[in-house]
Amino acid sequence: MEKKKINIGLIGGGFMGRTHSNGYNRVPNFFPDLAFTPVLKAVCFRNETKLKAFAAQWGYESTETDWRKLIERDDIDAVDICTPNDTHAEIAIAAAKAGKMILCEKPLARDLAESKQMVDAIAAAGVKNTVWYNYRRIPAVTLAKNIVASGKLGKIYHYRANFLQDWTINENLPQGGEGLWRMDAAVAGSGVVGDLLSHCIDTAIWLNGGIQEVSAMTETFVKQRMHQLTGKVEDVHIDDACSFFCRFNNGSLGLFESTRYARGHKALYTFEINGANASIRWDLHDLNRLEYFDNGDESNLKGWRSIHVTDGDQPYMGNWWVPGLGIGYEHSFVHQAADFFKSLETGEDCAPTFKDAFETQKVCEAVLDSAATRSWKSC
Amino acid sequence: MEKKKINIGLIGGGFMGRTHSNGYNRVPNFFPDLAFTPVLKAVCFRNETKLKAFAAQWGYESTETDWRKLIERDDIDAVDICTPNDTHAEIAIAAAKAGKMILCEKPLARDLAESKQMVDAIAAAGVKNTVWYNYRRIPAVTLAKNIVASGKLGKIYHYRANFLQDWTINENLPQGGEGLWRMDAAVAGSGVVGDLLSHCIDTAIWLNGGIQEVSAMTETFVKQRMHQLTGKVEDVHIDDACSFFCRFNNGSLGLFESTRYARGHKALYTFEINGANASIRWDLHDLNRLEYFDNGDESNLKGWRSIHVTDGDQPYMGNWWVPGLGIGYEHSFVHQAADFFKSLETGEDCAPTFKDAFETQKVCEAVLDSAATRSWKSC
Amino acid sequence: MEKKKINIGLIGGGFMGRTHSNGYNRVPNFFPDLAFTPVLKAVCFRNETKLKAFAAQWGYESTETDWRKLIERDDIDAVDICTPNDTHAEIAIAAAKAGKMILCEKPLARDLAESKQMVDAIAAAGVKNTVWYNYRRIPAVTLAKNIVASGKLGKIYHYRANFLQDWTINENLPQGGEGLWRMDAAVAGSGVVGDLLSHCIDTAIWLNGGIQEVSAMTETFVKQRMHQLTGKVEDVHIDDACSFFCRFNNGSLGLFESTRYARGHKALYTFEINGANASIRWDLHDLNRLEYFDNGDESNLKGWRSIHVTDGDQPYMGNWWVPGLGIGYEHSFVHQAADFFKSLETGEDCAPTFKDAFETQKVCEAVLDSAATRSWKSC
Amino acid sequence: MEKKKINIGLIGGGFMGRTHSNGYNRVPNFFPDLAFTPVLKAVCFRNETKLKAFAAQWGYESTETDWRKLIERDDIDAVDICTPNDTHAEIAIAAAKAGKMILCEKPLARDLAESKQMVDAIAAAGVKNTVWYNYRRIPAVTLAKNIVASGKLGKIYHYRANFLQDWTINENLPQGGEGLWRMDAAVAGSGVVGDLLSHCIDTAIWLNGGIQEVSAMTETFVKQRMHQLTGKVEDVHIDDACSFFCRFNNGSLGLFESTRYARGHKALYTFEINGANASIRWDLHDLNRLEYFDNGDESNLKGWRSIHVTDGDQPYMGNWWVPGLGIGYEHSFVHQAADFFKSLETGEDCAPTFKDAFETQKVCEAVLDSAATRSWKSC
Repeated sequence: MEKKKINIGLIGGGFMGRTHSNGYNRVPNFFPDLAFTPVLKAVCFRNETKLKAFAAQWGYESTETDWRKLIERDDIDAVDICTPNDTHAEIAIAAAKAGKMILCEKPLARDLAESKQMVDAIAAAGVKNTVWYNYRRIPAVTLAKNIVASGKLGKIYHYRANFLQDWTINENLPQGGEGLWRMDAAVAGSGVVGDLLSHCIDTAIWLNGGIQEVSAMTETFVKQRMHQLTGKVEDVHIDDACSFFCRFNNGSLGLFESTRYARGHKALYTFEINGANASIRWDLHDLNRLEYFDNGDESNLKGWRSIHVTDGDQPYMGNWWVPGLGIGYEHSFVHQAADFFKSLETGEDCAPTFKDAFETQKVCEAVLDSAATRSWKSC
Repeated sequence: MEKKKINIGLIGGGFMGRTHSNGYNRVPNFFPDLAFTPVLKAVCFRNETKLKAFAAQWGYESTETDWRKLIERDDIDAVDICTPNDTHAEIAIAAAKAGKMILCEKPLARDLAESKQMVDAIAAAGVKNTVWYNYRRIPAVTLAKNIVASGKLGKIYHYRANFLQDWTINENLPQGGEGLWRMDAAVAGSGVVGDLLSHCIDTAIWLNGGIQEVSAMTETFVKQRMHQLTGKVEDVHIDDACSFFCRFNNGSLGLFESTRYARGHKALYTFEINGANASIRWDLHDLNRLEYFDNGDESNLKGWRSIHVTDGDQPYMGNWWVPGLGIGYEHSFVHQAADFFKSLETGEDCAPTFKDAFETQKVCEAVLDSAATRSWKSC
Repeated sequence: MEKKKINIGLIGGGFMGRTHSNGYNRVPNFFPDLAFTPVLKAVCFRNETKLKAFAAQWGYESTETDWRKLIERDDIDAVDICTPNDTHAEIAIAAAKAGKMILCEKPLARDLAESKQMVDAIAAAGVKNTVWYNYRRIPAVTLAKNIVASGKLGKIYHYRANFLQDWTINENLPQGGEGLWRMDAAVAGSGVVGDLLSHCIDTAIWLNGGIQEVSAMTETFVKQRMHQLTGKVEDVHIDDACSFFCRFNNGSLGLFESTRYARGHKALYTFEINGANASIRWDLHDLNRLEYFDNGDESNLKGWRSIHVTDGDQPYMGNWWVPGLGIGYEHSFVHQAADFFKSLETGEDCAPTFKDAFETQKVCEAVLDSAATRSWKSC
Repeated sequence: MEKKKINIGLIGGGFMGRTHSNGYNRVPNFFPDLAFTPVLKAVCFRNETKLKAFAAQWGYESTETDWRKLIERDDIDAVDICTPNDTHAEIAIAAAKAGKMILCEKPLARDLAESKQMVDAIAAAGVKNTVWYNYRRIPAVTLAKNIVASGKLGKIYHYRANFLQDWTINENLPQGGEGLWRMDAAVAGSGVVGDLLSHCIDTAIWLNGGIQEVSAMTETFVKQRMHQLTGKVEDVHIDDACSFFCRFNNGSLGLFESTRYARGHKALYTFEINGANASIRWDLHDLNRLEYFDNGDESNLKGWRSIHVTDGDQPYMGNWWVPGLGIGYEHSFVHQAADFFKSLETGEDCAPTFKDAFETQKVCEAVLDSAATRSWKSC
């Protein structure tokens, strides 16, 4: 059977440009039964030297240095947005108007207003879309979703998550520009809230439903840093750390924390759900494992189970190796790419869509508002 | 050398009566070099049958059924208060007036007002005193204190702690009375805040200094339960769960959570401190271990160290067995008892004193106020 | 009800003298329902200064410096042997002839010949006896026994155990004499085989039945050490390390290892049993946990369970604290003491008896023979 | 710079065909600086339908059904052998004679005699070669090698490794044929010895040097199984389980075990090295971590470090993502492929070569001999 080709135009060539490109490249190898298959038609960013190298490395057929040109091209079916946050809205809206499918890196945008325009443009255009909240598709996380969906947990009491890093502790680290735009609020929109907590919130809403109201605290530990683009020491406007608690619509309580100042943690994204009958927890540093406690187990034999989520009957794992042989971070992007192409077959949405991601954005905005006003905020 | 005897009068014979009695009993065996030694002179509570059995089991020389009588006895040097929270204040104040040394189970009292009266009475009487926040004297926790004191952590950014249990999830569990007074707000003062978070706060202040302001959320999941003493279904007034964040005086951020609805956790008291140079974490379920991350370790060899705190040069451990052989929960009480007798030799305080515990009480009160008013509160 | 008193005469005041003394002392506190109760009537060893201090510390009513005198005393019901291995046989045989109950520290003796004489003497005398293979009575280990007895494991394929220490790596550590008799083969009989592997073998036979034949390797890494008693550098005759594999009577394979040269391990006694339907593993460094894998669990939810063996319905734990609050190494001795007194009520044996311990000794002897002859040996 | 192309001819399309194909495919993406690059020129196996699908899935330009034809083709530079063990020798020898580079799946062959012919043929032909003992190139394992090479461990006392699986416990599992040739001794040569212990031995020799002599035990738990190719119940000739101990040339002791009957373990390959000054351990189920104990750490702060081997300065990790984001099993093949192409630049060997693998084969043979004769065997 001849596969239908989807021509991808990738905008941006940073860390996320690499993860997405790898995702597309692996789909034919590991999901050979899909009816659709990606063609890496074009990649676009400004630095021409790096652009040629990137295209060669990942197998893109052509390059562009102006994203508007890429969007205008008739041979592009889908636009993948991997640029810094401040350009997501403009590109996505233009791509929607051009009728392209859109795959957008998270967070949707710098703030809720931008996000609203994007969601509206997508809705008006009616184009296929997805947002790369990739962690949903780590097999252990998908298993967590399946367990929740099965009802095994019973009434939910608690949801807690954190995302801890330590890479900005050094006070001499500059802000802004190449490799460090995440520390420039004008570009990123926020600090850990948009970058890290948005992941936690996306997973939380997916697993535990909508969030009603939040109360938050943020902190910027290092108040001034040299800006790489201006060469001057400038005020830092991002949040270095944020904690918030909240109430979910289902009556459970949420507790979230993120920071880039937790010495010893690199990318420690963990979540835990406590239900009346069972509990679940997961940790990105040991991503092939899911811990599960079932209160229905025989009394003397109750304990947290460490499930090594590598057997062939686990989500996605039938497409990889054999039991006991783990996969890595990058595979979450392969899975999302595969699911996107699958969604073209089925006609269903490839969640999270822009609309789904907008719900996450609302919580992020409420968190930042709450911290600024030192008061509870509805989402 | 003849040891000086300190006659102990214990009031209360529940779970804490047992832990304290065991503490006194073990001191001569494991801390033979102390100049002072306890004599279990009298135990006091109302149920006479149980009282006789308790005295026989633990070796008390005599019994009383009225605590006032016990306090009046000339042969009692020190009063140990293990009764439910609603009687702490009255007993402690009377004991102070009688010039007795006082060892009081935590929390100090049901609320800040009661606590204030106790602290004032103690100060007026000038009697030796200590409060049984026992976790400070788990060797791994004492080691944590020593590491903090050494300055190895550098500037502190984060402190987080939780105390998770699951024993009240059953909606048919009654409240109040024998074994369940902790669920009756009239007796306990509060729920998890006074019972569990007070432990977390005591350790936090000890390790990381004073707390400036807090913002909290509480929840009572099961709104009504049968009361054992009245036989009627009554409203539940305790907090089943509480989360709060805060700012410490040293500029670090705190995040705390406690609940009795975290399925799968029995007594999961954990804390973690993140400093610029090093981090520490501890978990009551594996109490002989302390985890330590040192950013000064050689680059490729950095990792969280799991320190099995059982060698003879670790705090208290020279008095126990040999490396690798762990001790248990109860030993924290033995250590506090030993330190109390040691403090009689040195003339120093046996922390935490009533004054120290009052600081914890202030934070507890601010937490409850904050949750009730949905706003930040100073401590 | 008046308890019946059993007068204990303890011989030896080293590490094991302390663990046994503590065991007796705790029994009345934590096992108050027993019909029999120990009286610490006398302790015996040669250093008079230390002897007085030891008696005072642990509450012995009297002292002896000659064990023969202690055995002759009419007011001694039970003799507890905690001396170095080379005196076990002589003392035990004399105590048996005197009609005393005997509690003997493991291993039974230096070799099989001595052990045989002891077993025969005990049998002839018909006295109550037990050997302190204490690890059977760690609650998690007793739970393991209960799981095995339930048949949940199915056909057993593998049993593996190790006991790893690192305290003799230093080549300048002397041998023999105070604190170091375990390194003198003339006193100890062997090195890790008798000291550590004997524990592993006792547990193995208890959990998995008899051992048919063994093949072993031993090594003495440091060939000569200064002897503390002679002041001379002498050849070292103990085994520093030993590995052996074996076949159990039930058809399963065994693999055992012990060493005092495993840097980083203090007292890492672990065992694992693999059955067709389920597996179990345990680790002395985290002694309150038992890991359990049940192949009957729902397919996607299979995983090793970490059972925190602290709930009141777990073996022995109803006598201690509340769920989540662990106990320590020393408690295994309290449990064996309690079980010994219980056995006086029931008339049953308090396993392991001398006869049971003799089976372990047979395996130890076969292991040493096998290593010496580089061939398989039957047990 | 134009890369030099190496045309690969892959023989075999099973599990290993997939891992190798993925390895080649990823090299250009993640190791873009190499001077050589693979071209997937041809794949060869007998089932034509599957062959076409395999070629399409992995991007092979052409197919062959007769491996002799593939070897004859002038446009093939390198032959990759992924067939069952019984064909390795014939193919490798033919490929060597044809002057092809050879990449051969482990183990080298069914037995030492076949292996000897292969090594000789390779030596005579002087062709570039490597054997896919892939675990060496898990970053944490390579880090272990670097630590050993640094001398940090000091004198080595112990090396232990095991490889535990549970997939053949079911007595109704057939043997031989599609998917199950590993259970047919005529094809595989042996059971766990060649399949699993060979990995452990390869790593051991690499990390700890040569093995002098071994003593082994093997067992076949299920004596007869239905053979898929004959349809008859036939005797099983493979070893289901094997344990052995050994002495290394450096004086350290080794202990190894492998089985397919360890319920609860999927691919639990672990190793541990104990040196006088430091120790290391690793576990395939958590492959991004290396545990390290350094006795030189400050006394109270010694503990096993859990190194999350994901920072950019760790072996191979600069080519992947960012700290904290793990990789998987498959990456070990990508690394070996990349190192093979790198070796074409440098002219050095890409270890393990056939010659290196022959050393492993010698130990395997000694192990099987030892088990058969119940005696020690030199390697």
